[in-house]
Amino acid sequence: MDGYIGWSLALRLAMTTQDKIVGVDNLGRRKWVKDVGSWSAIPIPSMERRLKILGAEAPDFVYGDLKNFDFIRKVFTKYKPHTVVHLAEQPSAPYSMIDPKHAAFTQSNNIVGTLNLLYAMHQVVPDCHLVKMGTIGEYGRPKVEIPEGFFEIEYRGKKDVLPFPRVGDDWYHCSKIHDSQNIMFACSAWNLRSTDIMQGIVYGTRVEEMRKPELLTRFDFDAVFGTVLNRFCAQAVAGHPLTVYGNGDHISSFISLRDTVRCLQLIIENPPAKGEYRVLNQIEQLITLNELATRVTKTAAKFGISSSVQHIESPRVDIGERDYYAVDHAKLKALGFKPKHSMEQELELTLKDLITCKARILAKKMHIMPKISWKA
Amino acid sequence: MDGYIGWSLALRLAMTTQDKIVGVDNLGRRKWVKDVGSWSAIPIPSMERRLKILGAEAPDFVYGDLKNFDFIRKVFTKYKPHTVVHLAEQPSAPYSMIDPKHAAFTQSNNIVGTLNLLYAMHQVVPDCHLVKMGTIGEYGRPKVEIPEGFFEIEYRGKKDVLPFPRVGDDWYHCSKIHDSQNIMFACSAWNLRSTDIMQGIVYGTRVEEMRKPELLTRFDFDAVFGTVLNRFCAQAVAGHPLTVYGNGDHISSFISLRDTVRCLQLIIENPPAKGEYRVLNQIEQLITLNELATRVTKTAAKFGISSSVQHIESPRVDIGERDYYAVDHAKLKALGFKPKHSMEQELELTLKDLITCKARILAKKMHIMPKISWKA
Repeated sequence: MDGYIGWSLALRLAMTTQDKIVGVDNLGRRKWVKDVGSWSAIPIPSMERRLKILGAEAPDFVYGDLKNFDFIRKVFTKYKPHTVVHLAEQPSAPYSMIDPKHAAFTQSNNIVGTLNLLYAMHQVVPDCHLVKMGTIGEYGRPKVEIPEGFFEIEYRGKKDVLPFPRVGDDWYHCSKIHDSQNIMFACSAWNLRSTDIMQGIVYGTRVEEMRKPELLTRFDFDAVFGTVLNRFCAQAVAGHPLTVYGNGDHISSFISLRDTVRCLQLIIENPPAKGEYRVLNQIEQLITLNELATRVTKTAAKFGISSSVQHIESPRVDIGERDYYAVDHAKLKALGFKPKHSMEQELELTLKDLITCKARILAKKMHIMPKISWKA
Repeated sequence: MDGYIGWSLALRLAMTTQDKIVGVDNLGRRKWVKDVGSWSAIPIPSMERRLKILGAEAPDFVYGDLKNFDFIRKVFTKYKPHTVVHLAEQPSAPYSMIDPKHAAFTQSNNIVGTLNLLYAMHQVVPDCHLVKMGTIGEYGRPKVEIPEGFFEIEYRGKKDVLPFPRVGDDWYHCSKIHDSQNIMFACSAWNLRSTDIMQGIVYGTRVEEMRKPELLTRFDFDAVFGTVLNRFCAQAVAGHPLTVYGNGDHISSFISLRDTVRCLQLIIENPPAKGEYRVLNQIEQLITLNELATRVTKTAAKFGISSSVQHIESPRVDIGERDYYAVDHAKLKALGFKPKHSMEQELELTLKDLITCKARILAKKMHIMPKISWKA
């Protein structure tokens, strides 16, 4: 619960529900970001301090690693969760592409952690709902519309409902595809229930429960752990050109941190049936990189910041060229989800928070440009 | 090169080609079979002794583990292979289902080994052809015909050629699906070439190069490492009923060991283009479990063995019920593959070899019945 979304969700749940909230983390994210030379733009206290600040509102926290099955089994036996939200993976595509050791670490860390959660559910709490953070990137960039997980096809005169094909663009995205495959199997073999979230790119700094500056969540802006829209905001604040990979026609899907947390709540409140492997596409908007850069530039101007845009060769494979991209996202609407804020409002809030952290961004400015190439 | 197919292929290549043959193995298969209490029906000498018997014809052998990237990189740097045949995975579905530790071991062992091979190719021999043993089980049991890897679909009025969806039935099959996903990405990112073989169930004891009894390959018949047709043959020899999982209407695909090795040769001789991720379905016949049992019973009768058939509840998930199964297998024919021997001829040869090993099968008879349940 120490990561970008995990901390935000923990605050929301601890402050707004009657449920006992238990966070589990090995604090790996802090270590990985440090390993690549960077840090969170927004300073974040230690977990110990975070919990102290929360006082009576603090969730329980258990330090440990999901790769250790006996550990996670003990946690499940002690707390008997009705829901497990799994946000505990190595989340960076570039990090997974550093070298063979980072590739192997990313895949085995992510896969084994999820396998252990599935086994612990099966053995200890078979009715538990696993809410798993996947990524919209699992689907790759097909020339057809992307459904939510499954699609009905007719092939050579016969019909079936099958998982929509997945195509990974890096070892990290492949690891998420592997997880999806594993969770689908566990639901069918063991009659477990799970929601596998195909999540768009998250951006923003806040949920409502972050009432004090020390309660803000981490914010990564380096080329390895920073996602594109957050990176653009940090670049604007630092007076660095917004670095668009490729020609900028590339369409991606986005959702704010606030809405991500709202969606997670809705998913928790509306579990799938026993045995169901439910796949949701959790996105708000489809938008090109160029349009994103324009929006950040416009919003930054309100704060007196003038920004430029720099197109650089994409370090990734086959990105930025195909401008067709269509993704269903009706299931969350059916659960009651409505975006509350515009992207412009979110960007304003984000820039406002980041301006107070300008010195920290400048201190790690050398990590803004991508150094890890997919082809190297 | 110490496994069932690996040893057979190593003999074939060492004795029939001009290429230098190098085998790499951590001898894991011997250990895993021992761990579950069983052994090879056909006694196999140590690797040292195997190589001594072969004398001047012996391939080079390097002991080591693919999970160690630096090791595999050194081997590649020394030998500069133009082809790598990767048969070095944990190959048992039941073994992967024993408990969380075996699940995690199977997936991380298989995935990390393949990742390391891909990186070593990319860094040392980018023109090398990776021949990877996958399994026909990766496709699951769809209600439509199964193509070879990819299919053209029309969905909501748009068309694309996409990977055929994969659905794993256990952690082992999922690990093979994960490998396929990873190899597909590596071919596209790094312009590597690979043939990913969707292999049917292999059976038989021999290839022509096994001129002495000590040169025979291993033969597993226990419920964990023995595949169905080999298990039926061993059961017949041991006077044990042939154990059919489920009602026996389940259709599976089969190919003999001799033809498997012949196909591998054809694949090696006909590499795909640089950057191509080629998927082949390597099967000969589609046949129900009941029909298999009948064929083994009939062939055993020629040796004066009378066998019975016992239907037992399947320890697996959702097996044996669906009788529709259709699989393309034209690509290997296009490369020149023609089966040389009938299943009956192969079964005769197999039973003849196994009869000489009856005592060894009887000694481990208690491991014939399945003990590992998918639902447990």
